[in-house]
Amino acid sequence: MSAKAVVLLSGGIDSSTTLAIARNENYDLYALSFRYGQKNRLEVPAAKKIARTLKVKDHLVLDIDLAAIGGSALTTDIPVPRERTDEDILGDIPGTYVPARNIVFLSYALSWAESLGASDLFIGVNAVDYSGYPDCRPEFIEAFQRMANMGTKAGAEGRPFTIHTPLIRMTKAQIIQKGIALGVDYGLTQSCYDPSPRGTACGVCDSCVLRKRGFNQAGIPDPIVYDA
Amino acid sequence: MSAKAVVLLSGGIDSSTTLAIARNENYDLYALSFRYGQKNRLEVPAAKKIARTLKVKDHLVLDIDLAAIGGSALTTDIPVPRERTDEDILGDIPGTYVPARNIVFLSYALSWAESLGASDLFIGVNAVDYSGYPDCRPEFIEAFQRMANMGTKAGAEGRPFTIHTPLIRMTKAQIIQKGIALGVDYGLTQSCYDPSPRGTACGVCDSCVLRKRGFNQAGIPDPIVYDA
Repeated sequence: MSAKAVVLLSGGIDSSTTLAIARNENYDLYALSFRYGQKNRLEVPAAKKIARTLKVKDHLVLDIDLAAIGGSALTTDIPVPRERTDEDILGDIPGTYVPARNIVFLSYALSWAESLGASDLFIGVNAVDYSGYPDCRPEFIEAFQRMANMGTKAGAEGRPFTIHTPLIRMTKAQIIQKGIALGVDYGLTQSCYDPSPRGTACGVCDSCVLRKRGFNQAGIPDPIVYDA
Repeated sequence: MSAKAVVLLSGGIDSSTTLAIARNENYDLYALSFRYGQKNRLEVPAAKKIARTLKVKDHLVLDIDLAAIGGSALTTDIPVPRERTDEDILGDIPGTYVPARNIVFLSYALSWAESLGASDLFIGVNAVDYSGYPDCRPEFIEAFQRMANMGTKAGAEGRPFTIHTPLIRMTKAQIIQKGIALGVDYGLTQSCYDPSPRGTACGVCDSCVLRKRGFNQAGIPDPIVYDA
């Protein structure tokens, strides 16, 4: 029997590649996605397709109410920033930052892992293209792991959790090359912060810009359609 | 203008007293409660009454799906343990432990605090009568605070969060005496893990046992009705 791993899966490039990496390491996969009031309503359907193609044991989709908490362009009427310069994208913490989102997501992953008897969690955070999100930094992941092992029954009883971040030091191009090598179908993935009603990616939000550049630098054609 | 504080409020003795303490320290109060699939459906109505009497600025009640994750007697068909010995109550981590529950609750409190521009969070955890819950220990709270200040925009930008745990070293009797001094109406509070359909407390679960003993030791009559 393989060990179980809980993998956070948004349906974008990074989390889909992370799921493929966990599969390649022979874990039994338990994918976790959220409907959290995000403008991108296509994320969860994309996550479902990815989870199916990568043969997860279970895929849990939780409805959580981060929109009630507010504070982000991804969940409120605050506009998603578009056509920003590189300096802007890499330099500050943007309006698309959802307060403590990865902390909430990892907390649920931890709760599910403890309930399943899993010790391994995977999250596709990335400190290279991370657009200034503090919850993508290695120091944060280490602090979360330490806290998790203090605050859970499993941790207190000597069955510690490990938070795996296989992408944390990779460029977007390297991530895409890795995923292609592992057979990820990026045509199923969704990256845009705010896609059009017919489901096409805007091409100009930070997430689209980083994705297009990643495919370009990897020398691989992006299989999805953009508005711009 | 007073500083804002987010206070986790379950509607029991500890969280209600914590709310009164935060009020006494002149914070503007933002109470946060959860419907998380707990058997005690009277917690949230109790929390609403307490929040009203303590004049909170806002009371957010979030529906979250910890029952989908399973693993606890508080949210599943696993029976709530009753009539346990003191050794049992204080010695192990009981079946009423909800995997990573306080971690999930604190993550939401952090998200809301960041959205509100609040730097102070209050949680009524207690390391004396804590029934072996790992997420009530001071080391855990310190680790959570550290993680929160690594993983949030506010923390990264030098506006750190403080997690206040005013009850952590108090006995239940001391907590009750403090609350009475601050005018908390414990007749509005709900402590039972699994109350009867008509709303009375069972009197024999760990939570009822600790509550009854606390009032007894404080020399104060408990204003609620018990089945046993």
